[in-house]
Amino acid sequence: MSDLPKYVQINEEGPREGFQIEPPTITTDRKVELIDALSHTGINHMQVVSFVNPRRVPSMADADEVVKRFTPKPEVTYTGLWLNEKGLERAKIHQDKLTLEGKISIYASEKFSMRNNNRTTAQEFEYARRVLENYLEHGIPVDRGSVASAFGCNYQGDMPVETITDIVRRIFELADEYGVKLKELSFADTMAWATPAHIKRLIGAVREKYPEQRLSLHLHDTRGMGIANAYAGLEMGVDMFDSCVAGLGGCPFAGHKGAAGNVCTEDLVFMCQEMGIETGIDLDKLIDCARLAEDIVGHPLPGSVKLGGNLDKLRASVH
Amino acid sequence: MSDLPKYVQINEEGPREGFQIEPPTITTDRKVELIDALSHTGINHMQVVSFVNPRRVPSMADADEVVKRFTPKPEVTYTGLWLNEKGLERAKIHQDKLTLEGKISIYASEKFSMRNNNRTTAQEFEYARRVLENYLEHGIPVDRGSVASAFGCNYQGDMPVETITDIVRRIFELADEYGVKLKELSFADTMAWATPAHIKRLIGAVREKYPEQRLSLHLHDTRGMGIANAYAGLEMGVDMFDSCVAGLGGCPFAGHKGAAGNVCTEDLVFMCQEMGIETGIDLDKLIDCARLAEDIVGHPLPGSVKLGGNLDKLRASVH
Repeated sequence: MSDLPKYVQINEEGPREGFQIEPPTITTDRKVELIDALSHTGINHMQVVSFVNPRRVPSMADADEVVKRFTPKPEVTYTGLWLNEKGLERAKIHQDKLTLEGKISIYASEKFSMRNNNRTTAQEFEYARRVLENYLEHGIPVDRGSVASAFGCNYQGDMPVETITDIVRRIFELADEYGVKLKELSFADTMAWATPAHIKRLIGAVREKYPEQRLSLHLHDTRGMGIANAYAGLEMGVDMFDSCVAGLGGCPFAGHKGAAGNVCTEDLVFMCQEMGIETGIDLDKLIDCARLAEDIVGHPLPGSVKLGGNLDKLRASVH
Repeated sequence: MSDLPKYVQINEEGPREGFQIEPPTITTDRKVELIDALSHTGINHMQVVSFVNPRRVPSMADADEVVKRFTPKPEVTYTGLWLNEKGLERAKIHQDKLTLEGKISIYASEKFSMRNNNRTTAQEFEYARRVLENYLEHGIPVDRGSVASAFGCNYQGDMPVETITDIVRRIFELADEYGVKLKELSFADTMAWATPAHIKRLIGAVREKYPEQRLSLHLHDTRGMGIANAYAGLEMGVDMFDSCVAGLGGCPFAGHKGAAGNVCTEDLVFMCQEMGIETGIDLDKLIDCARLAEDIVGHPLPGSVKLGGNLDKLRASVH
């Protein structure tokens, strides 16, 4: 049987992933309410907004205001997402509260990259180089390499493991060229094509070439595989996950019709807790946040543990 | 990496598990509509009703009528559930359409068994002996051993692996005593206490003692672990699962407040299909059935693939 990690780092993305896909009727105050509540759960890393074009993502038009209003806790790293230089310029204004995290980020699917950013994969790497130079010039640390649509793409189909390991190799080459040491390498199942067996194949292939590299997964639960995929990752030694409280989220450009939430933070924390893996997060407080998130968006959200409950409570009641 | 089975036998329980927990307002015709639709998906084993006390489970009051009205397909085995001799007597009337499947069934949790059936574990085994004798007397084949609440219980707490392997030993001893060869041994996570690691521990312990025994899992998804637990089972060579279309179901006596559905058939079939495991089931037809089930119960059901869709269709559209 595999050795599971002893500690898993969870990067909460609910406020960003979640609210970006909701209609822009959610008030700034309610967004801030969720961020502040999440800050009290033990979550230590949280992406709170995206600085994107308000015409494309109207519900993020108040990103600056959200950042101004939330109450930072010193033990939490708050981050934002940007997709271009304009977004980065907006993020830089908030360095009193946000930690700017540079990354080398590549869309593995050329068709999606063309559709979304009008760039071939070669152009993706050229763009990543310019972005990297810009980070270094402004003293923004670049700790993460990231591969989007690493398992499959609604526009391109299956993504072979060899395609992804080749992209990984080129990411490391680019980093090396600039003397950048990537602390983590993240694989996103942007459109929910992964199965647990596929996770094991890809992570296994990457592990073989880079045995010491910390690996991370960003999983979507569109086809119900999210937690199973996370488990497969854990079995392969992955000890860092992006996730969203209550299963909020989904990419507004990914072309899904159905529910498209991210893997649910409290379900993931529950699984870790029950398997003896530390996350530093208080499950009961997190469940309260999941219910709050549901109240804020005004419709049921997919997470299960907020309904099924924390087993530790049941245990305490029967012993 | 583990070897996954090449074929998985899926026992559909949606009509029984699902409708028993719904209010009795669903008409017999609509229940029959779902059973008949499921018969055309490639599902080859389906539990359609339970013959239980209509005062305790009012929505199963029409069980006899449901059996009379559905249209049997020769390639499908239709079964019913009973919990006592009276139920068995009712099932026996329908042997033209139902296959009577005897089993040696034990509630692992003594507290639940006391609460539900007013029997200690010793009395459970005595009762199982009488039931077994009754089956043998009436020529009903006994192919299955079954352990309920095999992972944990809301009334008793955690179920240690040693408790379960001890029950398994006693089940085999009882079977041996009567010259019964159990074709399958099933473990039910009746109250959704299992995690993938727990599945591996229990299945591993049982496999060690009975390496040739076919093992089966009956999983609930109350805390979002259903598919991950199924995957852990597959990795341990489990090749038989009970499941419910659309994630219908839940035990009406298990004391859950939240959603308590069974592991979802189409999500499980999707995972198998994507990992190259045969089930003989047409995923698109099954997704249609999941949507039908949702229409019949009149509220959203938890399965994901009915929203996220069959990847094979997307593949076909991009290649």
